[in-house]
Amino acid sequence: MIFKPIGIIHTPYAQDSTVPYQPVDMERDAQNLFFVDIEPDYTSGLDRLDSFQYIYLLYHLDRPRHPTTSYVQPPWAGGVNVGVFATRAPSRPNPIGLSIVRLFSVYGSRLFTSSIDVFDNTPVLDIKPYIRELDSKTDANYGWVEELPNRDHLLLHIKGVPHDY
Amino acid sequence: MIFKPIGIIHTPYAQDSTVPYQPVDMERDAQNLFFVDIEPDYTSGLDRLDSFQYIYLLYHLDRPRHPTTSYVQPPWAGGVNVGVFATRAPSRPNPIGLSIVRLFSVYGSRLFTSSIDVFDNTPVLDIKPYIRELDSKTDANYGWVEELPNRDHLLLHIKGVPHDY
Repeated sequence: MIFKPIGIIHTPYAQDSTVPYQPVDMERDAQNLFFVDIEPDYTSGLDRLDSFQYIYLLYHLDRPRHPTTSYVQPPWAGGVNVGVFATRAPSRPNPIGLSIVRLFSVYGSRLFTSSIDVFDNTPVLDIKPYIRELDSKTDANYGWVEELPNRDHLLLHIKGVPHDY
Repeated sequence: MIFKPIGIIHTPYAQDSTVPYQPVDMERDAQNLFFVDIEPDYTSGLDRLDSFQYIYLLYHLDRPRHPTTSYVQPPWAGGVNVGVFATRAPSRPNPIGLSIVRLFSVYGSRLFTSSIDVFDNTPVLDIKPYIRELDSKTDANYGWVEELPNRDHLLLHIKGVPHDY
């Protein structure tokens, strides 16, 4: 299956060491640091996208930190070893990333969004609306993270809440 | 970008006319009609996935009903014309489908799930855990659907609730 970029994600994260492991708190975002530029051929496909509060971005994880493996140790999870499909790790068989972001505004082919934990110049594969009744599962859980001894601390990482300990 | 199937989604929908436009109500599912078979090479990547209530399936929309266009008319939306990225229509520039499903059980390389509105034998690209704090946006909206005159009726379609009118 061959896919092509439909645009590019821009973030302040040019180098490996600067990309957070999770998105930072959405409420604190500067609104002009994260934006997506869509190729001119696809701009008309954005019509009415601005009616949605949240959107999905699907992108190509084109600079994984590690080679693809069946098991991964999430860097914030205290050494636990879990299957790659039970994580959002970038080193997956098909390196497709998925993020939900707030859509702040659309100017022509440029979408201003909340923060995304990806490198600057990451290729976008698709954009979809996030629709509350389809996508917000309030009875979802945290899976294996809930079973770890330092669960409350790890949930801060998952939520991207800054903390000093 | 070249991606490869990691498995196959099985559904009761062998033919075009039988696939619903949205998943049917998850609560009413027979638990053995929808399942995903993962390739043997990737089975160990499923470790601990069963600790999650919900998962994302990313798949190749390999049998779109229509050619790719910038604008689409969702079949249930009364003729409204919106940009393809403001919909979940299959006829998109990169035909990657995204569904959130309940994960009922995992037996080896087979995942039993709630209903998915795709053809039988749809190729899977990726599986990711759905994590409540990351993915459940309770302040999300319905975008352009909210502005339509028959909004309440259309929301039944979006939610996949069967109805006779």
